[in-house]
Amino acid sequence: MTFHQQTLANGLQLIGERSPSARSAAIGFFVRTGSRDETPDVSGVSHFLEHMMFKGTPRRTALDVNLDFDRIGASYNAYTSEENTVYYAAVLPEYLPKAVDILADILRPSLREDDFDTEKQVILEEIKMYEDQPGSVAAEHARKLFYGAHPLGNSVLGTNASVTALTRDQMHGYFSRRYSPSNIVVSAAGNFEWNELVKLVSAACGAWDAGESGRGNRTEWPGCGGLHVLTRESVQQEHVMLMAGGPPADSPLRYAADTLALAVGDDSGSRLYWALVDPGLAESADCAYYENDGSGCVYASYSCEPDEADGNLDIVRTVLAEVQKKSITADELHTAKSKILSRVVRGSERPMGRMQAIASAWSYTGEYRDVDTELKNFDAVTLKDVRAFLDRYPIDRSTVIAFGPAKELGGASGRTV
Amino acid sequence: MTFHQQTLANGLQLIGERSPSARSAAIGFFVRTGSRDETPDVSGVSHFLEHMMFKGTPRRTALDVNLDFDRIGASYNAYTSEENTVYYAAVLPEYLPKAVDILADILRPSLREDDFDTEKQVILEEIKMYEDQPGSVAAEHARKLFYGAHPLGNSVLGTNASVTALTRDQMHGYFSRRYSPSNIVVSAAGNFEWNELVKLVSAACGAWDAGESGRGNRTEWPGCGGLHVLTRESVQQEHVMLMAGGPPADSPLRYAADTLALAVGDDSGSRLYWALVDPGLAESADCAYYENDGSGCVYASYSCEPDEADGNLDIVRTVLAEVQKKSITADELHTAKSKILSRVVRGSERPMGRMQAIASAWSYTGEYRDVDTELKNFDAVTLKDVRAFLDRYPIDRSTVIAFGPAKELGGASGRTV
Repeated sequence: MTFHQQTLANGLQLIGERSPSARSAAIGFFVRTGSRDETPDVSGVSHFLEHMMFKGTPRRTALDVNLDFDRIGASYNAYTSEENTVYYAAVLPEYLPKAVDILADILRPSLREDDFDTEKQVILEEIKMYEDQPGSVAAEHARKLFYGAHPLGNSVLGTNASVTALTRDQMHGYFSRRYSPSNIVVSAAGNFEWNELVKLVSAACGAWDAGESGRGNRTEWPGCGGLHVLTRESVQQEHVMLMAGGPPADSPLRYAADTLALAVGDDSGSRLYWALVDPGLAESADCAYYENDGSGCVYASYSCEPDEADGNLDIVRTVLAEVQKKSITADELHTAKSKILSRVVRGSERPMGRMQAIASAWSYTGEYRDVDTELKNFDAVTLKDVRAFLDRYPIDRSTVIAFGPAKELGGASGRTV
Repeated sequence: MTFHQQTLANGLQLIGERSPSARSAAIGFFVRTGSRDETPDVSGVSHFLEHMMFKGTPRRTALDVNLDFDRIGASYNAYTSEENTVYYAAVLPEYLPKAVDILADILRPSLREDDFDTEKQVILEEIKMYEDQPGSVAAEHARKLFYGAHPLGNSVLGTNASVTALTRDQMHGYFSRRYSPSNIVVSAAGNFEWNELVKLVSAACGAWDAGESGRGNRTEWPGCGGLHVLTRESVQQEHVMLMAGGPPADSPLRYAADTLALAVGDDSGSRLYWALVDPGLAESADCAYYENDGSGCVYASYSCEPDEADGNLDIVRTVLAEVQKKSITADELHTAKSKILSRVVRGSERPMGRMQAIASAWSYTGEYRDVDTELKNFDAVTLKDVRAFLDRYPIDRSTVIAFGPAKELGGASGRTV
């Protein structure tokens, strides 16, 4: 594998990892913008804009976009998170030029008023359907209560009110501010020629106007604290989340955080699995570390029958307090590392996986990490590193959020949502 | 890539495709047994038995099985279909010996009476939860009505009554008949040493008693025909399936069948997509070819609001009749082939994908097909082949099954289910 990178004159960054033995290529446009970069009056605009990118450009109708991707057999999609909006495609190597052409084209959309109005209805429908997914609603409430006024608590979808009020000109303003070339990383992986790719991307994006996008509040966040019981009687299961602060994406402690979270809450064979799932006390239980730009978090959660929720909360708190006090055992560390190494290797076996991994590392740290480096970093995690992580980011000082039919939990009364 | 194969003295077949550049290895035990091999009195036993395989052996408790897989960071699982029961794991190359040891061990389970009783409750719960997934219930009804008395119509889960009545001795009898070495293919792909693998599998499985398993009815099946409206008012959406016979897995027409089905019903840019999904008439619409041992089928389906179901049925019938009469265009064939070639390539990029692909080809046809051969076979599909497929397996002579709130459809009255 060989790594290449180049920055165009207008600030657009291009990175690529070539694997000549691969049979396909993956390419993605990573725009460093998401709900955390929105002001309340345009809440949901990042995600809505992502949809609009497929609705046509001066060169292509929405139908053309669909047909052009289809003719090259592309596996393509896009997603919006709190801090990234990503457009990507995986194709056979001979179709990479066409994939670059389409992706670059749609990233300079027409944003036509009538398309905007039509798509707004689709988004409002999506917001409505989202309300039927208790796990997602629970997670969104939890993030909001954990982050408070910190912009990482912003909703990706926005609300019915914010999306309804949004105008095409507000969206265009957001687009102009956030989609400047210097805020975009184009990432490629798999079977492709680097010089050819540079030519393609330069031709397609070199004329994009330069600009600066930046990002606001990037402070670390330990959570607002508290026990919040949100009652919705129509939901069957109780969803409970315990969130604590964690290292940001560019911290060396990310490896220990990921490893420890897996030992605590992997969906098979972890502390929470043996405490809750194996004995049948909870439907699911897990713990994961999420890295973000400037601030990470560690997220333990479970879902269960409402009448088990109270007892389970005691159990989870006990597990977290024990781990905080005594850390994990050498055997648990070994198992967690085996799982992570296996996960990293399997995730690296497709160009799509590598394209995402190098783009993520690059945009958070400006570094290229090949698979071997990433494996070495995880393999090097010691019990001492885990202890250092726990001391710096105590996992038992949680903001606790419950969502479901329970009217009371852990001694706190619920408020209906 | 190099392919190897060997049959042990007791009949167990071992196949492997080595890719020295891969960073992981995948291994699977493919047992040629599933619901089609069950008699009505043991309906559901294949799937129940799959669960029991993880409940312990003379050498391992259920806990040991879980911990042993966990310590090597294995991504492991199992599934049961109408005709196969498959146990598999993906691991780093150094852990392959251990993965073989665990998988081979669990395939000779203790089937302890108390574990059997406990797990029976889990299965009954699974059957109950399954009832809450309208799409799955619809598909099961459809298969039953399409296949009638043909064993491919048998339910994988079985019913509450059949599973409740099942005894441990019946399960043991089924296991003895169906899990003979000659009915098992062990498949490996990725980074491994063939000679080493032969030694490992011989040591682990060489002493298994030989026996013959066979399989009953393998005749081709065009479907029972008719329009069946199954009414369940508590369901929100109407699910409609139009099923027709298709070539069996070892037919050369499988390539044309797969390509045609994609042109008719891929979830983006296909006849049904443009006719139903793009204009918002249906939530989803698709068409797919399923290959089976001795008999395939082509499956068009859509789900929509109940009041659109009738009009949509006319549209789908018109689309199928047009395709049957005039076939597809050269442009549609080109797009469908681009998608399939891309899908085959992307599916081949992980050892897990190759392990499954070679095992499937091997057990259906006794052939090894490398990725290039498979690509060549799809690339060679002509409009003439598509025509030959349509003439042999008309896609418009369907068995139609509707499941949902509608009390009437296409002039037929519903019966409550």
